[in-house]
Order: sequence, then C-alpha cells, then structure tokens
Amino acid sequence: MSGNGGLRIGIFVFDGAEELDVVGPFEVFAEWGSHSQLRPSVSTFSWDGSGVRLAKGLRILPAHGADDVGPLHVLVYPGGLGTRQLLAQAGHLEWLRMIRKQTPIMASVCTGALSFAAAGLLAGRPATTHHNHYDELTDLDPSILVDTEARYVDDGDVVTSAGVSSGIEMALHLVERLETTAVARSVRFEIQHPAG
Amino acid sequence: MSGNGGLRIGIFVFDGAEELDVVGPFEVFAEWGSHSQLRPSVSTFSWDGSGVRLAKGLRILPAHGADDVGPLHVLVYPGGLGTRQLLAQAGHLEWLRMIRKQTPIMASVCTGALSFAAAGLLAGRPATTHHNHYDELTDLDPSILVDTEARYVDDGDVVTSAGVSSGIEMALHLVERLETTAVARSVRFEIQHPAG
Repeated sequence: MSGNGGLRIGIFVFDGAEELDVVGPFEVFAEWGSHSQLRPSVSTFSWDGSGVRLAKGLRILPAHGADDVGPLHVLVYPGGLGTRQLLAQAGHLEWLRMIRKQTPIMASVCTGALSFAAAGLLAGRPATTHHNHYDELTDLDPSILVDTEARYVDDGDVVTSAGVSSGIEMALHLVERLETTAVARSVRFEIQHPAG
Repeated sequence: MSGNGGLRIGIFVFDGAEELDVVGPFEVFAEWGSHSQLRPSVSTFSWDGSGVRLAKGLRILPAHGADDVGPLHVLVYPGGLGTRQLLAQAGHLEWLRMIRKQTPIMASVCTGALSFAAAGLLAGRPATTHHNHYDELTDLDPSILVDTEARYVDDGDVVTSAGVSSGIEMALHLVERLETTAVARSVRFEIQHPAG
C-alpha cells in the first residue's frame, strides 16, 4: 500500500471471499483516488500475504499480509462462503477484535457481517447482511438489531452492507461521509453506477 | 474452464483491464450457474496464461491462456487503460477478428469497445462505450452509430456496454436473452443488484 500519508483502506481477502464483495468496493475506493483531496489508497491483504481463491474460482494475489498491511482508516471485510471457516476460528475472531480497536471504520460486505457478529462487533447494534442470512446473524448474536430494508447500515465505527452488489453502494456512501456528496457523485458518475 | 458441455463464457484479462469491468460480469455469470438449466461456466484467460495487473493495481491469475481457453459461446472483453496498447497491436486485432468468427457473442465492457472498433467489429453498427470516450470510438471508425443513452447495446452477435458498472447490467441482460427473464431476475436478486 502506498505510504503517501493519505487515507488508507484495506480489503481483507481470503479463500472463498465473494468476488464482487471484494472488487466492488475496491473499484470505488481506487477511483476515489482520482477525485479526492484526501489521497485515499486502497489495497488488498490476505492473512499471510499469499494468493487466495475466491468463492467462484477467481484467484487473486493480494498486495500484503495482515502483518505488513499497516494501520488502516477503513477495513473492508467481504462475505462469501469462506466466512464460515473464519468465524469458527477463535484466533481469527481475536484478530478481528484487535484490529477493531485500531481501525476507525470496520465495514463488512454481505456475509462478512457474520464474522463481525461472531467476534462480538455487532452486539446491541443495528446491522445488515445478505438477505438469505438474516437468521444466521441473530443466531450468532441475538442482540443484533437486524435491518432487513437497508442496503447498508452506518453505525459510525461499524458499517455493514447487504448482499454482494450492495458493497458498491456502501463504499460510495463512505466516500460521501469521509469527503463530500460531490466527490461521491463524481466517483459514481465515473464508474457509471446507477443511482441507488 | 470446466468441460461440462454447457454454455461457456470467457473473460479476456490483460494488464490495465479495469477491475470492475472484469469482475462485475464474472460475478453475474458465475452466479448464473446456480440458477440455470444451461450449465454455464465462466472463466478468465489472458493472452499467454500468465498473471495480469489490472488498471488499479489488483493482480489476478487467470485460469487459461488464449491458446487453451477453448471454444466460447460468449467472449467478454473489458475496458481500462490497457486497451490503448492492445488496440495498437495489429496481431491482437487479427486475433480478435479470428475469435469473432468462432464466437457467437462478442461482448465488450466500457472502453473494451475501442479494441472492437479498431478491429473493425463495429463497422456500421450501433455501439456504446464509457461516456468519456464516445469521440475515440468514432475516431477509430466513423461508421459506428454511437448510442449515448444506452447502458448496453445488443446488436446480436456483438454487444457493447457503457462504463465499468454497466458491465453488470449487460451481463444480466445476456442471462435474460440466453435463458429467461425469470432466471436473470433470480441472479439479480441473489447478488442484490438494484434494478437498472
């Protein structure tokens, strides 16, 4: 990740992460760099820095591992079938809780919210996930206030989005929140994403 | 690519292809596999099968090279800055014209249409591209009938889409055309992509 002193966004990738959950926000945040005063940079990182095979078979090589991605302003945590293994690993959930203390905004896409729930990050908070998985969210933590209407739920330091393509909308929202409505509109216009 | 006898979709990837141009259609066509009677499979391929660095820095490892991807029903050709090098290579344009003879549907995303134009695939046809690049399209081939309103233009064997995110809409359209409206709706619902 470029060390330009700007706003730093890291997208965590893992075996079985859903393709568009990863690349939708990546595209938005990378395009933001061409329109912004905040010098945002976006990068992918896997647990150990090695390549991953996403949920539908696409293989990507992340730029970093968790050890060398460095401090982030925003962590994006995608969904996908791979979350089921991660949320069952105590060490991974401990890592999520540790990262959460250092990272101003934790943002999940789709079933990435299940890992957040398992780590206790959503306790007593409003949140959303892919529409097929609301029950799993409350099974993991009954105190979560599931929003079944929103495309994303911004609860300040923790932001969750609905399924897959909703991650694009959440990322555009974060651009608006962190910079301005005008800049978010420019990014949306440039990637020709329809109004939400 | 799986040789299951079903409908085969190949996404050509190259250095400087735009991330969401590649992964938007990939996600749609991969999800289609879970809803379809046509056993569609989608795969990425690069010119020589080696890894590529996309326009905004994401590195991916394609499943195939052009020599071993095999016959395709649909070829998806993304846009991105990398198209500028490709459309200046006579050998690449010759390859595109050869592939076009063997492939029922040639589908470009964003500035991928510039390569199609340079290869002569859009002569006298309606087509579109990213909204910043209409003039380049007609500079390459003044006989192209540029549609500045559509999110995608389906001219039968050649389909072009507008910028970046429009590739998702074009892919959903192809699912509808090749199978049914109901199946396309199921895919859109599953990836929670808003109505176009």
